[in-house]
Amino acid sequence: MKGAGATALCANGERPQDAKASRSSDAEQTRRDILTVATQEFADKGLSGARIDEIAARTRTSKRMIYYYFGSKEGLYISVLEEAYRNIRNIERDVNVDHLSPEQALRELVSFTFDRHQENPDFVRLVMNENLHSGKYIAQSADIPALNVPAIETVRRIVERGKKSRAFRQDIDPADLHMSISALCFYSVSNRHTFSTLFKVDMTSRKALAARKKSVIDTILASVRPR
Amino acid sequence: MKGAGATALCANGERPQDAKASRSSDAEQTRRDILTVATQEFADKGLSGARIDEIAARTRTSKRMIYYYFGSKEGLYISVLEEAYRNIRNIERDVNVDHLSPEQALRELVSFTFDRHQENPDFVRLVMNENLHSGKYIAQSADIPALNVPAIETVRRIVERGKKSRAFRQDIDPADLHMSISALCFYSVSNRHTFSTLFKVDMTSRKALAARKKSVIDTILASVRPR
Repeated sequence: MKGAGATALCANGERPQDAKASRSSDAEQTRRDILTVATQEFADKGLSGARIDEIAARTRTSKRMIYYYFGSKEGLYISVLEEAYRNIRNIERDVNVDHLSPEQALRELVSFTFDRHQENPDFVRLVMNENLHSGKYIAQSADIPALNVPAIETVRRIVERGKKSRAFRQDIDPADLHMSISALCFYSVSNRHTFSTLFKVDMTSRKALAARKKSVIDTILASVRPR
Repeated sequence: MKGAGATALCANGERPQDAKASRSSDAEQTRRDILTVATQEFADKGLSGARIDEIAARTRTSKRMIYYYFGSKEGLYISVLEEAYRNIRNIERDVNVDHLSPEQALRELVSFTFDRHQENPDFVRLVMNENLHSGKYIAQSADIPALNVPAIETVRRIVERGKKSRAFRQDIDPADLHMSISALCFYSVSNRHTFSTLFKVDMTSRKALAARKKSVIDTILASVRPR
């Protein structure tokens, strides 16, 4: 696609710098197409089950081009993880709770985190798969740790304000609180198949999700209040 | 092994009924050997990655015998899941908290559930894998739902006593509370690789686990108290 795009531009008589810019935006588009299809493939089948042939067949590019852009199947998988964290954390960075009271801010953050997980089951599946691989691929990514800083920073800011106003306990550890929020939100997606089958509990209807979300918010809020 | 065992018994001059009993205990032993090795294989590699050849090579039996006992790879996988739930829930059934106050009973149950998950990472991996398969294999098991009844019954009894004594809120739903306990305990094992890498948090040292366990217990206890 990269070559074909560049040729078309030259035939249009554009100046070299425009052709170059378009070529690079064409390359970026191809890269994004591959990532979108690969995200689906890795989320469905995991790193071991996913096939580069399958990904190539579902994009407008070739297997050779995938290796050209991403180096290897593992390279592509790491890029998929980076992209998935980038999407999730971008939204997280944008949640603005600094104008709310600490309780209200925490309530908003938990609500937001719950919804993000529900809306992104592929992200949850990728993270589950990566944990089954003992997290060894995210450890190879230079970008992923930096992408996650805002998540914990948001919690830290809320906790600091809550401690200062005495609305929260003084001994709350932001990383520990973030872990509880993540656990409660993640599990509602990650384990919904086994939990709903074993305990005959509805975990997907609008009503069930609203009730569960309220319970998660109330649980987190109760956990930070002074005893 | 089954044939060899039976021959040795006959050579010892045992009576037919003893030989038959020993043959059947021999068969049970073979079945258990297969399940032990298969649990490891499926926990390591998932249903798709696991190989029957590999399992046969690591037991004292043949691939043919595995198919004889379990029918298919999927049949063996379902038996492994059943055995894993049986082991976890057997221990759960044995936790006796009926003599404790509702708060103390809940504290004990959460502590117990947290430890069980930490001690059984293979169980956690099997459940993660099964969820990546959308829970379609446990849905085929006749035994697994029944095995999980005691887990929710224990929570239900504690909640009833807690409501009666007014130590707990009146609107607690036992299944919802069980979900929160499971989520907080499960995540500490299931997501420890990604979470510890992303947030530079220790999730495996004795000290870190003790602190996290305390936090999980406190969170659950705070969530049931009247507001």
